[in-house]
Amino acid sequence: MTDNIERRGFLKRSATLGLGAAAAGTLAAPAIAQSAPNIRWRLTSGFPNNLDTIYGGAVFAAERVKAMTGGKFEIQVFQAGEIVPGGQALDAVAGNTVEIAHTCGYYFTGKDPAFAIGSAIPFGLNSRLQNAWLYHAGGNEAYDDFLKDHGVMARPGGATGSQMGGWFRKEINSLQDLKGIKMRIAGVAGDVMSRLGVVPQQLPGGDIYPALERGTIDAAEWVGPYDDERLGFYQIAPYYYYPSFWEGGLTIHFFINPGEWEKLPEEYKAALDTAFHAANINMQALYDVKNTTAIRSLVGKGAQLRPLPRDVMDEAYKQAFALYEEYSQKSPAWAKIYPDWKKFREEGFEWFRVAEFSYDSYVFGAQAANQQ
Amino acid sequence: MTDNIERRGFLKRSATLGLGAAAAGTLAAPAIAQSAPNIRWRLTSGFPNNLDTIYGGAVFAAERVKAMTGGKFEIQVFQAGEIVPGGQALDAVAGNTVEIAHTCGYYFTGKDPAFAIGSAIPFGLNSRLQNAWLYHAGGNEAYDDFLKDHGVMARPGGATGSQMGGWFRKEINSLQDLKGIKMRIAGVAGDVMSRLGVVPQQLPGGDIYPALERGTIDAAEWVGPYDDERLGFYQIAPYYYYPSFWEGGLTIHFFINPGEWEKLPEEYKAALDTAFHAANINMQALYDVKNTTAIRSLVGKGAQLRPLPRDVMDEAYKQAFALYEEYSQKSPAWAKIYPDWKKFREEGFEWFRVAEFSYDSYVFGAQAANQQ
Repeated sequence: MTDNIERRGFLKRSATLGLGAAAAGTLAAPAIAQSAPNIRWRLTSGFPNNLDTIYGGAVFAAERVKAMTGGKFEIQVFQAGEIVPGGQALDAVAGNTVEIAHTCGYYFTGKDPAFAIGSAIPFGLNSRLQNAWLYHAGGNEAYDDFLKDHGVMARPGGATGSQMGGWFRKEINSLQDLKGIKMRIAGVAGDVMSRLGVVPQQLPGGDIYPALERGTIDAAEWVGPYDDERLGFYQIAPYYYYPSFWEGGLTIHFFINPGEWEKLPEEYKAALDTAFHAANINMQALYDVKNTTAIRSLVGKGAQLRPLPRDVMDEAYKQAFALYEEYSQKSPAWAKIYPDWKKFREEGFEWFRVAEFSYDSYVFGAQAANQQ
Repeated sequence: MTDNIERRGFLKRSATLGLGAAAAGTLAAPAIAQSAPNIRWRLTSGFPNNLDTIYGGAVFAAERVKAMTGGKFEIQVFQAGEIVPGGQALDAVAGNTVEIAHTCGYYFTGKDPAFAIGSAIPFGLNSRLQNAWLYHAGGNEAYDDFLKDHGVMARPGGATGSQMGGWFRKEINSLQDLKGIKMRIAGVAGDVMSRLGVVPQQLPGGDIYPALERGTIDAAEWVGPYDDERLGFYQIAPYYYYPSFWEGGLTIHFFINPGEWEKLPEEYKAALDTAFHAANINMQALYDVKNTTAIRSLVGKGAQLRPLPRDVMDEAYKQAFALYEEYSQKSPAWAKIYPDWKKFREEGFEWFRVAEFSYDSYVFGAQAANQQ
């Protein structure tokens, strides 16, 4: 381990709480609370409300903001499709059809691959390092700087942790077995998979089960045990692979109309931003509890857990980083954000290998061996 | 991996947001905001203010609450010793000398070992699973139920992640090398270490360096790279061991006087609780960034990274779980909380081994091998 930590200098990163100015400002104007305006926002979620945990992140934040402002600042949450389809959520925020959206940046890589780097890219940061990068290593600032050109700003507002690698009708024992497989997978992950011989398919959640059942597709990735169990894939595609190399730590964001944000009183900005932080940690904790239960239940129902073969992981890794170099050529935003992100990833992984990973590695192994 | 997931049923855990009632209540009383009272609380931190990250968690929460309430609810933060010594923080909250404290539950194991179970015990939960257990698997409710007898209530309000195993003047190559070592380490960890032949010593932070320098002690544990670097241990005890088997995921808590909490308007309760969530995720993100930088700096200054020997880890594991059985005999609170905690730990570890750990394991290894 020692040898991996190189003896060289480091970039000193600024790590600001980002709220000092607001806090100081409110001290000088203690009367604002009395004149707190009634504000109503509409939020479009990128998710259907039956995905209760990920959809629930917006509900959680809205409930907190309402409670903190005595009902004066109310955010009404709509599921995907109620106001606009999920794919138009960012345009709706930029055009002020809604003030705010709660969705995944990587849904919008059709506009620019840089949309994905704030949320999740293959072989990217895990959940802890996503938060570290976004909150305190310049990630959110870099992402916001890019989003400005698309008329929105963003704040982290949810996390799933490492997801599962999807459901397959047949076992995958090597890279060769992936050739020609029709898999429901999209975005950057779909780009990587297509380089491995997979034929990526885009299907909404509700269409996956019938497509798998009819054999129109051979495999599908969705989220993790809790959300996957409800869609019943284990009944028709029993091989459940891990991990999702494309979503090692998904961050869900709140995307906000900057003009509407600026109009808010400082108290409401602070309430919103604090509620976003709370929604982020709350969703991760909720998924970690629900998935712990669901994985046991799925195995009890016959799901067959399988690790993705090593040659699949290795080839995907190689192709992913080749793809990122190509993105640097065609997306100026990617070219700007990616080098710092990559450096943070390298150094963050080095540190995590020392204490965090060696702790997990020991206790996970010891618990399995000793059954205590 | 498959075989470790047992095919059996699971306890369905209730996972409530805990704020539904408050949110509904404020809807019925929208006028409260206009009559928001001016409230001043005093907070005693368990830490000196030169430990800026861990001490800063209380400052962060206080700033947020002030900003959200337009300066009407102000919490003044005092460092350890300014109002009461760190060891009296809980008594000060219970006796209403201060309304709130920000400190580690395990500092109070002299009263009852159950104080440690909410914060960190050897070979316990990692950072993610601490949050999962406390927020959504009944952990906080169980901890609060115990704390009621000590006149306080608690909410998570900060995290360090897995810490380091401390600084040693000489290399430790086996369990045998620990015999007779005088080490600055306290609480449950000290109890485990003493069963390994270590002579635990209790010393405040400022006394550690001179004691190490004079050879009064042979080793000392503190926190992690960022906090440790400032105390300069690398100059006199260059062997830096990992991981801290006794703090795989420390949660710092806000301890609150229940009577003062009840007196708060619902808006302020919501603001406080949301700020606590934010302080929790913020401190972890901050430590993850600062430690990433500090570990590189320390190695550059000559710190020698070493893993704790396998026989040390194994014997400590065995002794820790034997100790927990003894605690069950002498502490009714421990006996009540521990079985559910242990079951959650077992099932949480099982799930984490599947996706999260296999993702980390692959990417950490691939990054080191490919340097990308």
